[in-house]
Amino acid sequence: MADIKNEIGLPAAIRVTRGLEFEMTVGESAVAAAWVLARPWNHAEELRRAPARGGGSARPPGVRAPLGQELRTRAAYLPTASKLINEEKLLQAKIFTRNFEDGLGFEYVMFYNDVEKRVVCVFEGGPYLQGMPGCLHGGAIATMIDATVGTSAMIAEGIVMTANLNINFKRPVPLCSVVLINSQLDKIEGRKLFISCNVQSVDEKTLYTEATSLFIKLDPEKQV
Amino acid sequence: MADIKNEIGLPAAIRVTRGLEFEMTVGESAVAAAWVLARPWNHAEELRRAPARGGGSARPPGVRAPLGQELRTRAAYLPTASKLINEEKLLQAKIFTRNFEDGLGFEYVMFYNDVEKRVVCVFEGGPYLQGMPGCLHGGAIATMIDATVGTSAMIAEGIVMTANLNINFKRPVPLCSVVLINSQLDKIEGRKLFISCNVQSVDEKTLYTEATSLFIKLDPEKQV
Repeated sequence: MADIKNEIGLPAAIRVTRGLEFEMTVGESAVAAAWVLARPWNHAEELRRAPARGGGSARPPGVRAPLGQELRTRAAYLPTASKLINEEKLLQAKIFTRNFEDGLGFEYVMFYNDVEKRVVCVFEGGPYLQGMPGCLHGGAIATMIDATVGTSAMIAEGIVMTANLNINFKRPVPLCSVVLINSQLDKIEGRKLFISCNVQSVDEKTLYTEATSLFIKLDPEKQV
Repeated sequence: MADIKNEIGLPAAIRVTRGLEFEMTVGESAVAAAWVLARPWNHAEELRRAPARGGGSARPPGVRAPLGQELRTRAAYLPTASKLINEEKLLQAKIFTRNFEDGLGFEYVMFYNDVEKRVVCVFEGGPYLQGMPGCLHGGAIATMIDATVGTSAMIAEGIVMTANLNINFKRPVPLCSVVLINSQLDKIEGRKLFISCNVQSVDEKTLYTEATSLFIKLDPEKQV
């Protein structure tokens, strides 16, 4: 689908072959090798604990990784019980961005750079994410921004929650096109994480969206 | 699913029976009669042109309306063509919030009050919209906020585009629960529309989310 060659400091070549899989050939340079695959949510902790990389030696070329594992439901962090919750339905819970058929919804992979505290998401919004005719729905853009900055926050601080998203939609994103979502961890103040983000065309010539976000680190002992 | 009785000035009784259908019994009072069903996007123009209502006479009791019509793709407003658009996929385009099976995704109806310039959305986020375990994904909340304030903007000014969404997530929304999204058109300045919004539990005791938004009215003669 997307074939992106080393234009933004990402690993030398990425080819997203279908919905949840991709092929990646890692470049020789230290810059390229600093990028690692970020598996959102359930794998964030694992990535956080991984040793620092460098020198292009940590990963064999031609890595191929499935990304479609379902999130295992955890008991922690369930909000205060509501009488209006449909408990039968709750058992079917699956993570939002992984619930469309391949090619129709959220198609993405994310990469994390521990040195630069950046997460880059390569995202193709499928035809079922339409808002205005021919354009990606603003909510779908907001969703992928939330997922990208959320991944950045989780890698940095573990379990977090979005407190604020402030999104400026500058130009409509064409439906079924590939874009890059670049996020940057700006600062951490106590339990607060400030992360900025933009959405650009792959050639970086078109700025579609800019956003800032605030995340709060959660205390695992307390219910939210 | 949701059975909400006249608590927020909505029509006397609403019963959302399944995904995209609902039954509504209109009350006798002028307040209740001022609320009309808002069919988002493709029907906004039709609603805008409808005559003003009052006195409870405009609508028979027990209205039952399907809401699942697919958006007809219009040629206008397509963004600048990108070489990266997958044109074959584009032909399958469908509106984002209507693409899950009944009961699994975005379940909602919206009502518009022309007198008060308000749109209220009754929304149940299904099990496929999960973010943190047991909670609605922040992006799914953002999507329904965008859809609700967008409907308000379109009813007021025709074809519009989201320019800014600023969302404060105060408490997690339990997955598979019913919430109310209340939006209010605050002011119009030239082509700009300012609309505020909140997400509450049906009993109005829990404030989940607050948001402000800015929409820009589009010129049908110009490409965005």
